[in-house]
Amino acid sequence: MGGYTDTSDTATSPALGVAVVGAGYWGPNLLRNFQASPGFRLRWLCDLDEARSRRAVGEYSTVRTTTRLGQVLEDESVDCVAVATPAGTHHHIAMAALEAGKHVLVEKPLAATFEQGRELVRAAEERGLVLMCDHTYCYTPAVLKIRELVLGGVLGDLHFVDSVRINLGLVQRDVDVLWDLAPHDLSILDFILPDGCRPLAVAAHGADPIGAGRACVAYLTLTLPDGAIAHVHVNWLSPTKVRTTMVGGSKRTLVWDDLHPTQRVSVFDRGVDLVPGEELADDERRNALVQYRSGDMVAPALQEREALRGVVEEFAAAVHTGRSPLTDGHAGLRVLDILEAASRSLEFRGAVVPLRGLR
Amino acid sequence: MGGYTDTSDTATSPALGVAVVGAGYWGPNLLRNFQASPGFRLRWLCDLDEARSRRAVGEYSTVRTTTRLGQVLEDESVDCVAVATPAGTHHHIAMAALEAGKHVLVEKPLAATFEQGRELVRAAEERGLVLMCDHTYCYTPAVLKIRELVLGGVLGDLHFVDSVRINLGLVQRDVDVLWDLAPHDLSILDFILPDGCRPLAVAAHGADPIGAGRACVAYLTLTLPDGAIAHVHVNWLSPTKVRTTMVGGSKRTLVWDDLHPTQRVSVFDRGVDLVPGEELADDERRNALVQYRSGDMVAPALQEREALRGVVEEFAAAVHTGRSPLTDGHAGLRVLDILEAASRSLEFRGAVVPLRGLR
Amino acid sequence: MGGYTDTSDTATSPALGVAVVGAGYWGPNLLRNFQASPGFRLRWLCDLDEARSRRAVGEYSTVRTTTRLGQVLEDESVDCVAVATPAGTHHHIAMAALEAGKHVLVEKPLAATFEQGRELVRAAEERGLVLMCDHTYCYTPAVLKIRELVLGGVLGDLHFVDSVRINLGLVQRDVDVLWDLAPHDLSILDFILPDGCRPLAVAAHGADPIGAGRACVAYLTLTLPDGAIAHVHVNWLSPTKVRTTMVGGSKRTLVWDDLHPTQRVSVFDRGVDLVPGEELADDERRNALVQYRSGDMVAPALQEREALRGVVEEFAAAVHTGRSPLTDGHAGLRVLDILEAASRSLEFRGAVVPLRGLR
Amino acid sequence: MGGYTDTSDTATSPALGVAVVGAGYWGPNLLRNFQASPGFRLRWLCDLDEARSRRAVGEYSTVRTTTRLGQVLEDESVDCVAVATPAGTHHHIAMAALEAGKHVLVEKPLAATFEQGRELVRAAEERGLVLMCDHTYCYTPAVLKIRELVLGGVLGDLHFVDSVRINLGLVQRDVDVLWDLAPHDLSILDFILPDGCRPLAVAAHGADPIGAGRACVAYLTLTLPDGAIAHVHVNWLSPTKVRTTMVGGSKRTLVWDDLHPTQRVSVFDRGVDLVPGEELADDERRNALVQYRSGDMVAPALQEREALRGVVEEFAAAVHTGRSPLTDGHAGLRVLDILEAASRSLEFRGAVVPLRGLR
Repeated sequence: MGGYTDTSDTATSPALGVAVVGAGYWGPNLLRNFQASPGFRLRWLCDLDEARSRRAVGEYSTVRTTTRLGQVLEDESVDCVAVATPAGTHHHIAMAALEAGKHVLVEKPLAATFEQGRELVRAAEERGLVLMCDHTYCYTPAVLKIRELVLGGVLGDLHFVDSVRINLGLVQRDVDVLWDLAPHDLSILDFILPDGCRPLAVAAHGADPIGAGRACVAYLTLTLPDGAIAHVHVNWLSPTKVRTTMVGGSKRTLVWDDLHPTQRVSVFDRGVDLVPGEELADDERRNALVQYRSGDMVAPALQEREALRGVVEEFAAAVHTGRSPLTDGHAGLRVLDILEAASRSLEFRGAVVPLRGLR
Repeated sequence: MGGYTDTSDTATSPALGVAVVGAGYWGPNLLRNFQASPGFRLRWLCDLDEARSRRAVGEYSTVRTTTRLGQVLEDESVDCVAVATPAGTHHHIAMAALEAGKHVLVEKPLAATFEQGRELVRAAEERGLVLMCDHTYCYTPAVLKIRELVLGGVLGDLHFVDSVRINLGLVQRDVDVLWDLAPHDLSILDFILPDGCRPLAVAAHGADPIGAGRACVAYLTLTLPDGAIAHVHVNWLSPTKVRTTMVGGSKRTLVWDDLHPTQRVSVFDRGVDLVPGEELADDERRNALVQYRSGDMVAPALQEREALRGVVEEFAAAVHTGRSPLTDGHAGLRVLDILEAASRSLEFRGAVVPLRGLR
Repeated sequence: MGGYTDTSDTATSPALGVAVVGAGYWGPNLLRNFQASPGFRLRWLCDLDEARSRRAVGEYSTVRTTTRLGQVLEDESVDCVAVATPAGTHHHIAMAALEAGKHVLVEKPLAATFEQGRELVRAAEERGLVLMCDHTYCYTPAVLKIRELVLGGVLGDLHFVDSVRINLGLVQRDVDVLWDLAPHDLSILDFILPDGCRPLAVAAHGADPIGAGRACVAYLTLTLPDGAIAHVHVNWLSPTKVRTTMVGGSKRTLVWDDLHPTQRVSVFDRGVDLVPGEELADDERRNALVQYRSGDMVAPALQEREALRGVVEEFAAAVHTGRSPLTDGHAGLRVLDILEAASRSLEFRGAVVPLRGLR
Repeated sequence: MGGYTDTSDTATSPALGVAVVGAGYWGPNLLRNFQASPGFRLRWLCDLDEARSRRAVGEYSTVRTTTRLGQVLEDESVDCVAVATPAGTHHHIAMAALEAGKHVLVEKPLAATFEQGRELVRAAEERGLVLMCDHTYCYTPAVLKIRELVLGGVLGDLHFVDSVRINLGLVQRDVDVLWDLAPHDLSILDFILPDGCRPLAVAAHGADPIGAGRACVAYLTLTLPDGAIAHVHVNWLSPTKVRTTMVGGSKRTLVWDDLHPTQRVSVFDRGVDLVPGEELADDERRNALVQYRSGDMVAPALQEREALRGVVEEFAAAVHTGRSPLTDGHAGLRVLDILEAASRSLEFRGAVVPLRGLR
């Protein structure tokens, strides 16, 4: 990491040297955003496939490419490493980077298993290095606004979250639809839920109707505290793309439709109120009256901004100030916890599997 | 039933005398459709609340009202009785009507329990009377078209069905959201699925985040033969109305959006094909290649026609010809079977409950 | 009108006797709403085609039908006449009704020509009778809300109105698309525009590409005061239905999409502000800066209510209190003025035709 | 142009040296596409503002920048020049490039006036150089498909075209909304219309309600042969973005909604047929019957492909083969002809202005 001095003033900090590992699907996006960010100086693109790296940087670029991770990690001008390789290799690469004293940004999911993820978190903590998960969606203007509304109490108590992420997707060879798509929904859920509201258990149902050898359609049900519920529908076989999340609260309910660019977030002052029947016996409560609110809908103005730009800036800020990034290793771990429990539930035909109850 | 002579020629048949029991939410719709149908002569509207009956018929009407079911059943000019009362009273009223020799049309669900439903089916069969379920949605032009496409093989083998029916709904005092809304989805599923494709088991997850005393949000997962899956999301707390069903097949996938009046049904020639790896071991199949089809979408022309009109006509045709109506008592029973199993699953936190395997 | 005593207290007023003339497309809707209204007692349905009348009232009705207008007008229990016949007959029927001392509600357009319309207005005024235009759309919750927002200054100064009303429509035998559809848009425009903002002139362009003998596609451009503009697109040949009106103002702009039932009106706090360059020469103003506002969007809660119910209630209120109805004969005249000018413009290939400048 | 040898085999042709002039709004898009195209070798980015050029190429690029057009034109390795500067400078820059023997791609509109555009066309023709207009939208998969459907006769005879392009747009300092936005619609119209169907005349209505010094809202009506009509609505003041074009024909009508990425083009087998009344007098024809077709809708599969990629490839193909590009200088001239006539119409309050009738 060379002579890098920690400072809370990011603006005047020297640019951080960064290397991107992985030139596949996501790597080029990281590449582009690191190049555009004044906070970073892109040093390397590393991939086992040299030709793929060259294609990714393009023929007019001065960015260096390499097939050897060692070359990257030995380079003292590299302060940070961004890992965009398949999940199975995250642990190996990220661990090597941490051991070389580099701050690390890892593609979702943090690792292939909870245990591997935990090792990364520990390794980073022991060395005082930043370990950040690239939970990209959390940095969209829409999700940042949703978090603000939920944590600011605008929605009231959380009642339900329903998330649908379906599309004619690439049937992956190494992971099922759960591990491919649900990390998005689970990382968003983790991001917007208040601390006291973390999921307690999960049940998962899936199907492989095309005989692909792994679930292509899956439904996750998460038990939340206080009778609330979250549900995730992920599907590789849908001919149409849907990316909609509904967050229901006691005061307001919001709908996030990521494919409606001019009205992504709609906040409805509409809902059901239970007329309180104080000191009623349980049986009597069932007869308590219900009131309906039918108020206005507000679609808050959101700027159009690439989420990955926010990821890159948050990474720089965390490195400079030493604080935890908004989506740190622990967030990644909590997502892995749910994914592993959901996989077990799938195996046991939908049995409810309790979660670890991480901080 | 008086001197009514059975005939297969509905067109020239004398109009059937009909009485509607129940002047609440649905009764007036039956009333209007029986009045508009040349196949019926509306004799009575019967409700315990006389004022409600009078409001339902309106002050310019010659239709007679009564609070006494006996008066209706004794009337020889009444051939048919349509029951639109709360589910808990279906068994009592429908049984009395059958015992009085009347053909019966019953609002969904057929009865409050599977056992009661079975008694009605038996009673009708013993007497050679028509027992029809008013599974209204099955008679919409959209669902009739979907059935035609599925049974005609246009979609290929069925892979998945995903049904969402959510809205800011009336929190019912007597039933949960499952019994209130899911009968619609389950009756549609029953209507469009080929015989060999009936659900084998069900798991249900629900939540009552507002403390209403019963589930206000529920998710049903149905195991279908051959690795297929069906899923139903019903919700009283959604601020927006969604009524969308996706039916995925090996050849085509269709989306039915009931709130998109100019394009309710969209058939996508788009999907994932598994490249067949003949004689591959199970492990090898996982590496089989996948192909994507990206063809046109066709939205078939559908006439705009009130579904209840079709219900009323099918009822008349079944009575005149003696054949089973499209949505007969057995269809009603199969829906009740799933509803009861789903309720048990809800009780046992999502446990998978096998179905009876009815014909 | 018999012994009817004027009173401002509608609630306790005796029901008004009403007759509907015309059992075609629109008449049955009037019929249904008068029957449902406690303020009216429906006496007659009058149509030259008796069978059509009988079908309209239905076989269970006590409402009397007749083919003779005279019989209706002689009936002292008839206080009001609602005319839903072709436009060419409005003048004759409405005039006869006024001469018989009846209050009159006329279907749009008020008459076939401006001159005929003016005679009706005069006749009603001379006799102190109510003459109301059934500009139905003005009584939708959406248009009432738009009027409230415009007149309440929420939109600021009016900049532009753009109205699209297209559909695969019935090619009429007697009128072109302008006279068939534009009365809706023009009556709405008349309803929501402040008095000082009435159109000054109109230009119309049309086409008859199918050789129907009259314009099937038409575009109207209205010059409004202060540089504002209104535009109407009506089209019988569109395969899809669009009914969208945009009202742009200096402070806010709203979009009314009548086919989006859960979000008919959207008010955008979004726009362009000219940075004021005081005391600039005209040429310099062109270089004045522009600012963009990008605020929230609010979709006000609207009740779902049949517009014709509001028409009927307004008619009753006007008769009881003697005040002008919201859409009185003058409103109908102003619409006729524009229609006639637009027809002349069509004849002269789009020439701008000034309007009469009615109060 | 050095020793470049013309060849019809683009695939094996040497890459063409290209320079981009203008690093403002559109230049960077050209930059990116030329860089990604194997058919081109990007030599220069030229802009009077050096810093803007440097920002556009980015700090990791080997692409040279210059502020001197002369330096670009003297460079023998530059075969082609792409001009993305303000319209007022097109003539000067493109003419200089042509005189230096370079093939030229010009941003829309071709030039600031028809006369200037004609000089460019002549200059290119005299020198045997390619002059291409970057009518980008014509190279979208949607417009290419629409052209195929229209020219292939799938729509039948053309009846009407209705195009809406509205948005909260940048109020330009140098041009009104007509010259800013309508070139898109007019170039698309020019691209899809059969030769025999070129517009004959135009009328334009506009408004400047914000006092910007130029029209911010404008409506264009184009007279087409055989009673057909085209209409364009462009608007800088709309809070919502709409980009919809309807093309109505005697057999089918299509709707292109550019903001509906999963269903951009919908082809409706729905319409109005005039029942032919052979040998009828003109008056009788008015009573001819009309039939309605209500068939399926088909949304053809379209690949997602950046239009500018197609522009760049067409430019290369035209240069290599010497043939006219699909959107050549004459296409640009025809658009300029309409724009100038429309401006004159605006001046004369909507008067119909005939077009030149270019080939």
